Amino acid sequence: MADIAFEKDLTVAETGIEGLKVLDLAVHGDSRGWFKENWQRAKMTALGIPDLNIVQNNISYNDNRGVTRGIHAEPWDKFISIARGSVFGAWVDLREGSQTFGKVFTCTLDPSKAIYVPRGVGNSFQALEDGTAYTYLVNAHWSLKLKKTYTFVNLADPELAIEWPIPLDEATVSEADLNHPMLKDVVPMAPKRT
Amino acid sequence: MADIAFEKDLTVAETGIEGLKVLDLAVHGDSRGWFKENWQRAKMTALGIPDLNIVQNNISYNDNRGVTRGIHAEPWDKFISIARGSVFGAWVDLREGSQTFGKVFTCTLDPSKAIYVPRGVGNSFQALEDGTAYTYLVNAHWSLKLKKTYTFVNLADPELAIEWPIPLDEATVSEADLNHPMLKDVVPMAPKRT
Ligand SMILES: Cc1cn([C@H]2C[C@H](O)[C@@H](COP(=O)(O)OP(=O)(O)O[C@H]3OC[C@@H](O)[C@H](O)[C@H]3O)O2)c(=O)[nH]c1=O
Ligand SMILES: Cc1cn([C@H]2C[C@H](O)[C@@H](COP(=O)(O)OP(=O)(O)O[C@H]3OC[C@@H](O)[C@H](O)[C@H]3O)O2)c(=O)[nH]c1=O
Repeated sequence: MADIAFEKDLTVAETGIEGLKVLDLAVHGDSRGWFKENWQRAKMTALGIPDLNIVQNNISYNDNRGVTRGIHAEPWDKFISIARGSVFGAWVDLREGSQTFGKVFTCTLDPSKAIYVPRGVGNSFQALEDGTAYTYLVNAHWSLKLKKTYTFVNLADPELAIEWPIPLDEATVSEADLNHPMLKDVVPMAPKRT
Repeated sequence: MADIAFEKDLTVAETGIEGLKVLDLAVHGDSRGWFKENWQRAKMTALGIPDLNIVQNNISYNDNRGVTRGIHAEPWDKFISIARGSVFGAWVDLREGSQTFGKVFTCTLDPSKAIYVPRGVGNSFQALEDGTAYTYLVNAHWSLKLKKTYTFVNLADPELAIEWPIPLDEATVSEADLNHPMLKDVVPMAPKRT
């Protein structure tokens, strides 16, 4: 496994997409392995991460380097991080009326990184290592019915021009994810009704 | 890695220690790996797991088979599960006034299992695989200061007689964990002041 940077300070950085924020986490290494506070409400909200009323914690496990999932914009907020391995992540603004609609942000996430993804920003990743465990916290309950309210965009859309480290024709992608529309055909995600 | 049982129903089982509950989780396998709802508030509280006001999500990563951590009773509740690998877990009732004070429960946790550990029940585990990622959710913020209010008991206490799969003299254990008191010298954890 790639080396993890230990003992960084907890910090938050902007990404050019409103509300999408990347974090450096403090990971404490010792002879046993490492320990991290993956979500720490008081410290993170103090740094400008919105408070997350967590109702689900999901884990996707990716057997092989190259497994690629996305691009999914869901009607809730997500806090994403890595328990083992690393991913190349790509995020796309799919919010109706957003000044940066269609804008892409990419970065690598390993266990010393996390990202806060607001509702309506499309989320995707490609595992860079065999046995990559990807974990996230969300503030609404998933259901098969709600899946119809997601907004999807295609991983291979040339307009997005995401430079996947493993070419998509060598990657493992679900049937569903192969068939998402191109950006020009996407119906943007409408703001939350209040 | 050991095989994981896919598509179990979400169920909760009692352990003989009041409030300590073991869960079977539904893990969905496919060609990419697997996906699970690790914590799902609505479904789990409906099955009798207390609602958890999650403020921290912690991950400990264990490089090698045999890494052993514990036995720690902390002044908050925990929901524990595995993102990769597997552990042998041991829990000890350390609550003042409990009818089962000193009672031990053990079981193996892999990604298809979870356990709810109430405040005052001592928690410990031994990694059964290299690269075991152990993740948990808690309802209070950790601090170095609060660590003085933990209750600890020794992993090797013959009175507890825990049968660690890897003998402790071949295990990796922190200096702190080697020096915890035996059960007979433990000051039980007092109930929460309300
Ligand atoms: C998101 C989700 C899925 N599932 C089930 C449905 C399937 O049996 C299985 C995998 O679901 P997919 O729709 O194939 O999801 P996937 O392509 O893996 O994408 C998921 O991981 C990447 C995340 O970006 C995305 O939010 C999430 O949908 O898990 C659940 O039981 N609960 C859930 O919350
Ligand atoms: C529990 C905790 C620890 N830490 C830091 C302190 C150390 O630098 C490092 C490891 O802490 P230890 O006290 O050595 O914890 P450990 O022996 O790994 O036990 C932890 O994992 C097993 C869990 O049962 C237990 O709750 C937890 O204390 O992480 C944090 O920054 N935040 C925390 O919440």
